[in-house]
Amino acid sequence: MKDAVVIAGGAGFIGTNLVSKMIEKQRKVFILDDLSRGAIGHLHELLKSPEVSFIKCNLANQIDCQSEIKNIAVLHGISEVWHLAANSDIQAGTGDPSVDLTSTFLTTFNLLNSLRQFNVGTFVFASSSAVYGNLGDRRLNEDVGPLLPISNYGAMKLASEAIISAACESWLKKAFIFRFPNVVGKPATHGILFDFQRKIKSNPNLLKVLGDGSQKKIYLHVEDLISAMLHVVEKINTPNVQIYNIGPDDDGVNVRWIVDEFLKIYKSNAEVEYGKTNKGWLGDVPVYTYSNMKIKAEGWAPTMTSQQAVTRAICENIDSL
Amino acid sequence: MKDAVVIAGGAGFIGTNLVSKMIEKQRKVFILDDLSRGAIGHLHELLKSPEVSFIKCNLANQIDCQSEIKNIAVLHGISEVWHLAANSDIQAGTGDPSVDLTSTFLTTFNLLNSLRQFNVGTFVFASSSAVYGNLGDRRLNEDVGPLLPISNYGAMKLASEAIISAACESWLKKAFIFRFPNVVGKPATHGILFDFQRKIKSNPNLLKVLGDGSQKKIYLHVEDLISAMLHVVEKINTPNVQIYNIGPDDDGVNVRWIVDEFLKIYKSNAEVEYGKTNKGWLGDVPVYTYSNMKIKAEGWAPTMTSQQAVTRAICENIDSL
Repeated sequence: MKDAVVIAGGAGFIGTNLVSKMIEKQRKVFILDDLSRGAIGHLHELLKSPEVSFIKCNLANQIDCQSEIKNIAVLHGISEVWHLAANSDIQAGTGDPSVDLTSTFLTTFNLLNSLRQFNVGTFVFASSSAVYGNLGDRRLNEDVGPLLPISNYGAMKLASEAIISAACESWLKKAFIFRFPNVVGKPATHGILFDFQRKIKSNPNLLKVLGDGSQKKIYLHVEDLISAMLHVVEKINTPNVQIYNIGPDDDGVNVRWIVDEFLKIYKSNAEVEYGKTNKGWLGDVPVYTYSNMKIKAEGWAPTMTSQQAVTRAICENIDSL
Repeated sequence: MKDAVVIAGGAGFIGTNLVSKMIEKQRKVFILDDLSRGAIGHLHELLKSPEVSFIKCNLANQIDCQSEIKNIAVLHGISEVWHLAANSDIQAGTGDPSVDLTSTFLTTFNLLNSLRQFNVGTFVFASSSAVYGNLGDRRLNEDVGPLLPISNYGAMKLASEAIISAACESWLKKAFIFRFPNVVGKPATHGILFDFQRKIKSNPNLLKVLGDGSQKKIYLHVEDLISAMLHVVEKINTPNVQIYNIGPDDDGVNVRWIVDEFLKIYKSNAEVEYGKTNKGWLGDVPVYTYSNMKIKAEGWAPTMTSQQAVTRAICENIDSL
């Protein structure tokens, strides 16, 4: 019986939350993670479940990837693969393009090649709104083009989508590509709230903000993200590749609002120093409006707005200070 | 003075034709080619020009790529890079995805990384209608989505587009992405006419055709293709990345018409054996309609229809039988 769920990147922020959900659903889970950005500490409680196994593995290494997938496939059968392993640091990839090449694209490439011989049915991929690049004020639905990502991060997410799509033509039965917005929650490993927390911890009197604060983006709580993905994967039986944006119903909040909210919750009087331009970093898309119409048409709805998600995530992580 | 033009894949079908045009324009040309699909024989006449140099180099090898680009950049200055090096055999890439990964994507990745430190201004990339995947009867203009290629060939062209786009955000001044249709002409190295010629040569009594003959595609003569690219590159000064479809004005011809035309010109009575389905191979997009409106708005126009291009290409290659 094929019943194992492989979660690549399962020790990361989103992966940890997904593993937890899979345990609730009594699935047999194999976590593959190189612990470069994820942390074994995140899995401490989860690994107590007899149904969860952890394998340290660098999926960018073709031979390691192939050998671990083969072991799981032969011994347990693989029903689904969730590929959440990736570089999550956009700026690191701008300085050194090989970061996104190896951590994001080659992990996808190697996973697909390893799964091919075992006839795995379902492949789920964590893509990103970054594949859209900077299309100004156009509302981003799944069909817009041209796709001209402005970061290597976005480029290697798009490259991964493309190779998954090609696999569906030749051997892969079903693939789901989910384009994530900014996702917040616990355990934060990167992103604006993590950045603020790290900075306030090292200097309680000064908060240096990337960009001039006018950047306006949507934020989704990781709980809503996981519920969206599971909803679609469990409901949709169409073969071939399906793309879904996942996002809240609103058009987002700007960075200044997040700064105020953060300082309020932290009861901080820190001085705030903003950057000069509306780009927080090279490859940052300062403003975008997202469409979640397609996934809502499938019957899923977010439970939080961007503001609610951010507020909750700040509170959830405050203890880890 | 920066005046060297680097043509990666310059010993291939399209590359050879481009080199020839660059000689007419009295440009200093450096051809980089690993001769895996190109042939030094194609360059025999062209290399007589004192302005043309040939360097055998596998651009998928990062160190080789970097070292050759550095030599040219330091000694001559590089003004433009034309990246035409790629796998051209879609079927080979379906069987072994590493073919398109290395020959198409990693050549792009390494070229960009090598050029970064030399501040090269213009990068021209040979992309493909294959990035669109199979969008049925939608007219393919540069803005349609989603982009779900159905071959690794198309996937790695799209991945290349994406990484070029990201480079434009961080250091590259100007990039042109040209999406080619089927291109015909001399010296044919692959494609339907090359396939027919090879088969008729090995067995003059039987022509086995890939697919049922109903596939309908557009064909552009390589002369029109080169004139389109040069027109745009010489005219457009907008920084950043620009995408252009290149194609004829018509909606193409079907394979049955090409078979008849081929046999007529070859004065052949060979029996014709068609395949069973409308896909010539896995990853074949059997029918698509292309828009060339964007490039025509720039003032370029094709001189041949698909039929004229095919007829001329059959005649041009008949001597090489």
